[in-house]
Amino acid sequence: MSIYDQDLGRGPANHVPLSPVSFLHRAARVFPDRAAIVHGKRRITYAEMLTRCRRLASALARAGVGKGDTVAILAPNIPEMLEAHYAVPGLGAVLCPINTRLDAAAIGFILRHSEARVFLLDREYAAAGAAALAGMDAPPPVIDIAAPDTPAGEATDYETFLRGGDPDHPLRLPDDEWQAITLNYTSGTTGNPKGVVLHHRGAYLNAAANALAFGLSPRSVYLWTLPMFHCDGWTYTWAVTLAGGTHVCLRRVEPAPIFAAIAAEGVTHMCGAPVVLTLLIHAPAEARRVFPQTVRIATGGAAPPSAVIAGMEAMGFAVTHLYGLTECYGPATICEWQPALDAMAPADKAGFMARQGVGHPLLEEASVRDPDTLAEMPADGTTMGELMLRSNTVMMGYLKNPEATAAAFRGGLFHTGDLAVLHPDNYIEIKDRAKDIIISGGENISSLEVEEALYRHQAVMEAAVVARPDARWGETPQAFVTLRPDASTTADEIIAWCRGQIAHYKCPRFVTFGPLPKTSTGKIQKFELRARARAEADQNGSVQPSRL
Amino acid sequence: MSIYDQDLGRGPANHVPLSPVSFLHRAARVFPDRAAIVHGKRRITYAEMLTRCRRLASALARAGVGKGDTVAILAPNIPEMLEAHYAVPGLGAVLCPINTRLDAAAIGFILRHSEARVFLLDREYAAAGAAALAGMDAPPPVIDIAAPDTPAGEATDYETFLRGGDPDHPLRLPDDEWQAITLNYTSGTTGNPKGVVLHHRGAYLNAAANALAFGLSPRSVYLWTLPMFHCDGWTYTWAVTLAGGTHVCLRRVEPAPIFAAIAAEGVTHMCGAPVVLTLLIHAPAEARRVFPQTVRIATGGAAPPSAVIAGMEAMGFAVTHLYGLTECYGPATICEWQPALDAMAPADKAGFMARQGVGHPLLEEASVRDPDTLAEMPADGTTMGELMLRSNTVMMGYLKNPEATAAAFRGGLFHTGDLAVLHPDNYIEIKDRAKDIIISGGENISSLEVEEALYRHQAVMEAAVVARPDARWGETPQAFVTLRPDASTTADEIIAWCRGQIAHYKCPRFVTFGPLPKTSTGKIQKFELRARARAEADQNGSVQPSRL
Repeated sequence: MSIYDQDLGRGPANHVPLSPVSFLHRAARVFPDRAAIVHGKRRITYAEMLTRCRRLASALARAGVGKGDTVAILAPNIPEMLEAHYAVPGLGAVLCPINTRLDAAAIGFILRHSEARVFLLDREYAAAGAAALAGMDAPPPVIDIAAPDTPAGEATDYETFLRGGDPDHPLRLPDDEWQAITLNYTSGTTGNPKGVVLHHRGAYLNAAANALAFGLSPRSVYLWTLPMFHCDGWTYTWAVTLAGGTHVCLRRVEPAPIFAAIAAEGVTHMCGAPVVLTLLIHAPAEARRVFPQTVRIATGGAAPPSAVIAGMEAMGFAVTHLYGLTECYGPATICEWQPALDAMAPADKAGFMARQGVGHPLLEEASVRDPDTLAEMPADGTTMGELMLRSNTVMMGYLKNPEATAAAFRGGLFHTGDLAVLHPDNYIEIKDRAKDIIISGGENISSLEVEEALYRHQAVMEAAVVARPDARWGETPQAFVTLRPDASTTADEIIAWCRGQIAHYKCPRFVTFGPLPKTSTGKIQKFELRARARAEADQNGSVQPSRL
Repeated sequence: MSIYDQDLGRGPANHVPLSPVSFLHRAARVFPDRAAIVHGKRRITYAEMLTRCRRLASALARAGVGKGDTVAILAPNIPEMLEAHYAVPGLGAVLCPINTRLDAAAIGFILRHSEARVFLLDREYAAAGAAALAGMDAPPPVIDIAAPDTPAGEATDYETFLRGGDPDHPLRLPDDEWQAITLNYTSGTTGNPKGVVLHHRGAYLNAAANALAFGLSPRSVYLWTLPMFHCDGWTYTWAVTLAGGTHVCLRRVEPAPIFAAIAAEGVTHMCGAPVVLTLLIHAPAEARRVFPQTVRIATGGAAPPSAVIAGMEAMGFAVTHLYGLTECYGPATICEWQPALDAMAPADKAGFMARQGVGHPLLEEASVRDPDTLAEMPADGTTMGELMLRSNTVMMGYLKNPEATAAAFRGGLFHTGDLAVLHPDNYIEIKDRAKDIIISGGENISSLEVEEALYRHQAVMEAAVVARPDARWGETPQAFVTLRPDASTTADEIIAWCRGQIAHYKCPRFVTFGPLPKTSTGKIQKFELRARARAEADQNGSVQPSRL
C-alpha cells in the first residue's frame, strides 16, 4: 500500500461527472448576453438558451420523461434541435435525433426500437412523421415544432410546451459519466439501422477535442451546414457552446443562404460533407458573396478531391479533412497539417490532405491492423489492413444488439470496417471500404483512386466506381458519372483522361452517364451501382478488354 | 431498468484512463520530427523525447521505483524537468518537483515527508541538496543533472542513468485515472509545507483546458518563464505537448535570454508572475529585441497593474489574467475577455482585466460563498465571501494530512481562503485573503514562518508579518515588531537575522517598530496592519492580490 492510497478519495469538491451539460452552465454564466443561437432574424442569448432548456427539461419531465428514457427528434438544423441536446441529457434522458431524409418506415422502426417516450417533430416533416406514427401500436405523444406565426396543428406546439415548463428546473449532470446521452441510428447498407449509443463522458471529451482541433474560441461563429442528426453534428452541438461561440442555424443547405450567413454573421467555422463544398464551388454567381474572413471548413465522409480543395481556398475557405463514424462521436482522425509542409506545391498539398490522417486529439489509438490477427501493419504506405480505434470517444455499443456490439469490439478494438494503409509518417490513408475494392486480374484497385482521377476531369461533377463482373479479369472498374450542367463529353474521352492519370489497369472500361442513386444521408449507393453493373454485364456478355 | 442499462458496459475499446502520458504518445506519432524541447543549442524532437522518457522510466524502474513511489526533482526549467513529467507518471509513480528557492531544511522536510525513492538533483542546487540529504537517516539515491561537458560528480550522472534505460520501455497509463501523478508542496499558514496530491484525470483535463483557453496549436512555441516546480508549470508541462507545440526551456528568468528566445524561436505563448512582466518592461535597451509576432502571456499571482498591461501591449504582448492555486492544478479562473468590450478605453480595460474573472474552461464551479453557511453571495460587486471551487481539477487532498484535507473540502467545496466579491456580470474579484499568505514574485510565503523567525530574535517581543503591495513583486513581506522593553535593534539587523533563518525571498523588506493593534481578546489585528502597509505603499500604486 502506497502513501497515496490513504485518505485521498473522491468527493463532491474534486470529482464531477464529465457531461457537456456543464458547457451550457458555464456559457450562460460567462457570456449571458452573447448570441448563443442565430436563426434568420431570431437571436437567442446564452442566458435565454439556458432558461429555454430548463423549461424544456421541466416540460418533458412533466410529460413523464425520466432517466434512461428516449426522446426522439425529427428536425433540421434549427434552434430547437440545439435545445434538445441540452434539455434531454439534463434530465438523464437520451436524445435520439432522426435523419430527416428517412422514409416513414425507417422513422417508424427507430421510434419503436428506441422506445421513444416523446417525439419532437418539425412541421416540415409532419407527413413522414404522421405516417410513421400511424403504423405504431402505442405512438409517443408529439410536440409540434412550427415556424412562428404558423396556424396551430393538432399536436402540442413546442413553444406552448416550453412555456408550461419551469424556467428554474435544474439541468442535472448524470450520476455517472458512463451514462447514455444520445442514440444515433446509422443507415446501414443492409437490413435495419443500428442504434449507436453515446455517453456523457465521450461527448464531453470529443467536444473538447473538436474545440481544440478546430481552434474554437469565444469569437467563433459556427454555421450549421452539417446536419445535427449526423452524430449530434459530430459533437459540435456541444463544442461550440464549450468555446462560448455562436451557433448559426440554417434550415436548408443551399448556396445562397450559406453565403449570406457567412457574410452577414461573420461565420468563422463550418463543417460538411464534400458535397457541401462542391455546392459552394458551383454556386451561381448571384448566390455568392465576398467576405473578408477566412472560414475554416472541416469535411469528412469522403476525401476532398484536390480540385475541391483548391476551389474552396480560392473562395476564402481553409479546408480540414476529418474522418470518423457515428460510432466514434464523429471525428476520429484528422489530417493534421504539418507546419514544415507550408512551402509544398498546391497539388502535393491536396494529395497530402486527401489522407485521413492521424488520431484526433484525445483519441487514444488509431491503428491499421490485420482484421483477423489484429497485428499492426507496417508503416510502409502499401500494406492494407483495417483501421481500428481505441478511445473514450468510442460508443457504448449498439442498442439491443449485443452480437453487433461484440463483433465491433472484438479483441478490445473498435473495427471501423475501412481498409487503410499506414504511411511512413504515421498518416493513415483509407483505400476503400472492405467491399469497395475491385480485384482485377489479381490486382487490387481502389475505387477511391479511380474516382479521384475522374473528379479531376473538368466536365465531371460526381463520380462513383464499382466492380463490374468480367469474364477475363474477374472484375473490372465501371464508372458512373454525373456531368456538370453545362458540360459534355464521351465515355472514350473519360477513359482516355484516366489513362493519363493512373495506371491503365485501374482505368474504367465502362462509363455510364446520369444521376447517381443516393442514401438518405447523401451517400452514393454503391450496392445499387454494383447491381446495375452486374445487370449490364449479364446482358452484354463478356466484352473484349482494352489493351493495358 | 432502462434499455440503456443492458449490454453497454465499458471495455478496452471504449474506456481508457485519462492521463497526460497519452499526449506524449500522440505527439511522438503525429509530430515525430518537430522540436519538442529547445534549450539553448539543444534540440529534442518528439520522437527523441519519447525515447528519452522511456529510458528514464526504465532506469527508474531498475532503481526500484514502482507504482505509488515518489521521485523528487530539484531543477530549474530544463529538458530533464519535462522528461520527468512523463517518465515518472508513465511508471505509475509520483513526481515531486521541489521549489529551487527553498533552503536545505525545507528541502529535507519534503524529501522525508514524500518518502522520495530517488532524487533528481540539478548541479546548480547541489549544495542545498547535499545539505538536505545530510540531515536524513536514509537519504534517497541522487541522480546528478549536470550541464554537458561538466566534470563528473559523485552521484550518477543523469545522461549515464538514461543510457542504462531501455528505449522501448513502455510508458503506461494508470490502472485508474484517479491515481496520483504529482506531489507539489505549498507554503501553508503553519510552519511546514503541505503536500498537494494531484491525479492523472485532473492533470489531463486542466492541460486540455489550458490548451483551449490559451489557443495552443501545433504552431505554438511556449517559453518556460513560469517555474515548472509551480504546480507542474500550471499543467503547461502537458498542455503544450497535447497541442504538439514546442517547449522552449530557460534556466534563468532574465530579460536578455527571454527576449533572445522570443526573437530566435518565434515564441507565441508564455506565462509568469507579474514580476516577469515588470522585468521585461524595465529591461535595459541592450537586452531588448524586436519581434514580429504577438506573444500571448498569461499572468497570475497578482492582478497586473494597468501600466504593466499597457507597457506589455506596447512591446507586442497580449496579457491574460489567471488566478489559481496549487490545489487546483494552477489556473482556476480566467479573466475571460468579452468581445463586446473591444472598444473599451485602455484604462477601463485594465480595470476589467484586474479581476480574477470566471471559471476556467472545464472547471465546474467557482463561487463566492459565506465561509460558514456556504450560502452563495449576491452578485452585487460589494458583498464579500470566500471563493470556493468544485471541479475535477481540484486536488485529491494533502498527503498524510486528513485533517487539512477535510478542512479544505468542508461542505463539498474547496475553500481557497481568498475573500472575493461577485460582480453583476458574474466576474469574481478577490479583495483580501483569509489565510496569512504573502505572494511575492509568484511565491507563497507563510507569514507565520516569517513571524517564527522574528520571534527567535532575542530583542523581539511581538511580531506580525503582512503583505505590503509592491510594484515589482506584487507583494512583499512587511514586519511589524514590538521590542522587549530593554532591547534595541535596527531594521537592517532584523532583516539580516531573518536571512540566517529562512530563504531570502521570505525575509521582510520593511520593518516597522512599535506597539501592535489588538482586539479586546488580545488578538493582533492583521487587517489593521495590512491597511497600514497599503497606506505606506500607496505612493507606488496598490496592487490587488491573486494567487498563482
